[in-house]
Amino acid sequence: MVSERLYKQLEFIVEIDKLKQVLRQSVVTGSLRNENDAEHSWHLAVMAILLAEYAAEKDVDILRVVKMVLIHDLVEIDAGDTFCYDAKGYEDKAEREQRAADRIFNLLPADQAAEIMDLWHEFEEMTTPEARFAASLDRLQPLLLNYHTNGHTWQKPGVNSEMVYKRNAVLKENAPELYEYVKEVIEDSIAKGYLRR
Amino acid sequence: MVSERLYKQLEFIVEIDKLKQVLRQSVVTGSLRNENDAEHSWHLAVMAILLAEYAAEKDVDILRVVKMVLIHDLVEIDAGDTFCYDAKGYEDKAEREQRAADRIFNLLPADQAAEIMDLWHEFEEMTTPEARFAASLDRLQPLLLNYHTNGHTWQKPGVNSEMVYKRNAVLKENAPELYEYVKEVIEDSIAKGYLRR
Ligand SMILES: [Ca+2]
Repeated sequence: MVSERLYKQLEFIVEIDKLKQVLRQSVVTGSLRNENDAEHSWHLAVMAILLAEYAAEKDVDILRVVKMVLIHDLVEIDAGDTFCYDAKGYEDKAEREQRAADRIFNLLPADQAAEIMDLWHEFEEMTTPEARFAASLDRLQPLLLNYHTNGHTWQKPGVNSEMVYKRNAVLKENAPELYEYVKEVIEDSIAKGYLRR
Repeated sequence: MVSERLYKQLEFIVEIDKLKQVLRQSVVTGSLRNENDAEHSWHLAVMAILLAEYAAEKDVDILRVVKMVLIHDLVEIDAGDTFCYDAKGYEDKAEREQRAADRIFNLLPADQAAEIMDLWHEFEEMTTPEARFAASLDRLQPLLLNYHTNGHTWQKPGVNSEMVYKRNAVLKENAPELYEYVKEVIEDSIAKGYLRR
């Protein structure tokens, strides 16, 4: 006999299979096809584990960071990916995503729905060291992909280095050693013509 | 100034982007395109978090399970995915994968290379409750995808329910409530013609 609780959990697990079809602006190195949110989330989780030592605040709870990055994009199953340099898309992003969170997370049993909702809000609001480190990784990962694909998304109209610096500013305080690398990449990308000054 | 250690970590992080191009036999629900190893690993990590309560041994270290599932398929970047019902492919699987592990993991600083190597061996050898729970999830996830795609990989020549039962046997002792569900799915799939008896 399978419990009602387990059925709900499995329904959620099957529903989130759809994250594999939400495409991002970044392309995967090698193939140059668009990356999807599930792959991106996996990459962030591995980064959280390997780069934990660079979190500015000591004793960051890495399991919490990992949980956050694994679930941070689930709302995009309904709300879609909003390109980080698209000001218009950002206008109603919060509203669209909250609606998505309400539908998707509530497929879970109430206790787990609440846990995932809290983690997602924590990530979005960057209210904790864990959330700020998660956000730092969420900036660094597409920067790495851009750097290794000749600045793929940086080549889009209207993107320049000032915007990329601003996007990555969260690393300055929250992962200063990683921020040093970010600066190096941005300056080298300008020099190589991957990114407009 | 960026340290040699960080450069190595970032080189590894960029190298494993290739996992997004290693295709599995399973297809993603909805699109029916082949799933890749990065997406699969993400899905397992979320499952580890949500289904932790079903691990037979109490006090399973979930961060360890999550780490294991996140890295368990990295060797397939070099060794490729071996279909679980392909006896021939299994003959030299261990050797091919160890060679891959030696190359890929050693891109990391020595301490982290050793940590990931240990985690991978633990997963492969199923020597701990964490590894056995991780293996259970690694069986359950493709079963869910098969069930929701009319038995996609089960339709391949030579696959029958006996083989699927055998493949999922690890759940019996290590996640008995999940095993109840597995049996339900297999029997229903036989009834629906997704899987040959
Ligand atoms: Ca595998």
